[in-house]
Amino acid sequence: MIKTPIQLRFNDIDIQGHMYNGQYQHIFDLGKNEYFERVLGIEQMDGSQTVVTASSTTNFYVPVGMKDRIAIHTRVERVGTKSITVFQEMIDLDTRLVKADSRTVLVGWNACTKESFAIPAEWREKIEREERFTE
Amino acid sequence: MIKTPIQLRFNDIDIQGHMYNGQYQHIFDLGKNEYFERVLGIEQMDGSQTVVTASSTTNFYVPVGMKDRIAIHTRVERVGTKSITVFQEMIDLDTRLVKADSRTVLVGWNACTKESFAIPAEWREKIEREERFTE
Amino acid sequence: MIKTPIQLRFNDIDIQGHMYNGQYQHIFDLGKNEYFERVLGIEQMDGSQTVVTASSTTNFYVPVGMKDRIAIHTRVERVGTKSITVFQEMIDLDTRLVKADSRTVLVGWNACTKESFAIPAEWREKIEREERFTE
Amino acid sequence: MIKTPIQLRFNDIDIQGHMYNGQYQHIFDLGKNEYFERVLGIEQMDGSQTVVTASSTTNFYVPVGMKDRIAIHTRVERVGTKSITVFQEMIDLDTRLVKADSRTVLVGWNACTKESFAIPAEWREKIEREERFTE
Repeated sequence: MIKTPIQLRFNDIDIQGHMYNGQYQHIFDLGKNEYFERVLGIEQMDGSQTVVTASSTTNFYVPVGMKDRIAIHTRVERVGTKSITVFQEMIDLDTRLVKADSRTVLVGWNACTKESFAIPAEWREKIEREERFTE
Repeated sequence: MIKTPIQLRFNDIDIQGHMYNGQYQHIFDLGKNEYFERVLGIEQMDGSQTVVTASSTTNFYVPVGMKDRIAIHTRVERVGTKSITVFQEMIDLDTRLVKADSRTVLVGWNACTKESFAIPAEWREKIEREERFTE
Repeated sequence: MIKTPIQLRFNDIDIQGHMYNGQYQHIFDLGKNEYFERVLGIEQMDGSQTVVTASSTTNFYVPVGMKDRIAIHTRVERVGTKSITVFQEMIDLDTRLVKADSRTVLVGWNACTKESFAIPAEWREKIEREERFTE
Repeated sequence: MIKTPIQLRFNDIDIQGHMYNGQYQHIFDLGKNEYFERVLGIEQMDGSQTVVTASSTTNFYVPVGMKDRIAIHTRVERVGTKSITVFQEMIDLDTRLVKADSRTVLVGWNACTKESFAIPAEWREKIEREERFTE
């Protein structure tokens, strides 16, 4: 499990004084990108072995204000033949409340050939090592 | 059902040349806001009778490029006691392909008293009239 | 001069109920991109003959609210040897007020060779034709 | 002078692999907000004594990539009767290159009465103390 502290931006907050729901995936992506970079050693935005998002579900529990200190906790909860399921929580660092969570299904994608690929055994091992280690 | 043509922005597109998945809810919101304004006569961002997002699921089927002409189709598929479920499709206006869809559960929210409220009968009637009319 | 009507988004508006100043260049870019596409027949984001921004100045005169109907007016005011200066106004379509303006210096840029280039005579002619025509 | 390290986001980067010029002010604002909060003890987004942006100029010197580690250096270079001029640099933490700079004129603004106000003597003193201290 990877913990990513978040630097909130002025434009994350909407007219009602809370984080705009459209911004949550921008922020959850900071966690996913750190996970993929640190655990798999890949960078999401280029190369022949990357991932694309197939689906994403977000639950909004408690509004986030400009002064809240938050972090994203990211872990992979399932590695399938062709997909990886990531589960993330947005944690309030002061109250420890889970303010929101998000589940994302990602598919292996070769940006050069424009084709999906089966999740490599090497990825599976690295993810299993990471998730076991932090439990 | 409300159809909202979308004006894409340069920053909707990511380094891979496709719409960034974090931007989809920004764009689906253009449809929801138009629906709530035209059908219910309310504006999502102020007042004592507004709605907040409880959860949101997005499926990504076909990438969107900068030159694609797209529209959001928005309809309410369920009105519950305290919530409204909105289903939306992102349509390619040239190919008619559904590029993505999104289902959002919204809860009635009084921004002044900071309390949820039961969906008013008046909303239910207006939504039923809209959805019947366009079927 | 090219006139681009703007579709405002929920996230353009900040906690004070006005357009966030960081969003203005996102919106002015809709005008620049339309100008370059329609007048020069180029698309800003790819190819060997594109432009990059060297500097940009924005003046904020009157706040923009969510319900304002605005358009961007874009014209080229100077074509230099290696640069083009674009002047843009954000117009309130109801009051005709200039809510903001922006002046941008753009430099010809070959994204493949990573080198600047002198503004082609063909661009100069097309721009002069456009600007004379609309005066 | 206040130094603000920046957490880059995936969506800061455009199709050409560089920071999108429309995002620069989002990032420079992280520096201004920290300055106003730490030096003046005010928070830019609410209250009777806030500031609004009158004008802003950005110079783009060297493109920023996703992996660049950058910080914003923010100082006030002039306190006028009714305005404050802020000068900011975007610094590459590895090469020490100035990748961009920005000069912003801010005006004292009472968000409740919707009126500008003269820069308070207390602000002037706090700013002078800060700027002297770090020279």
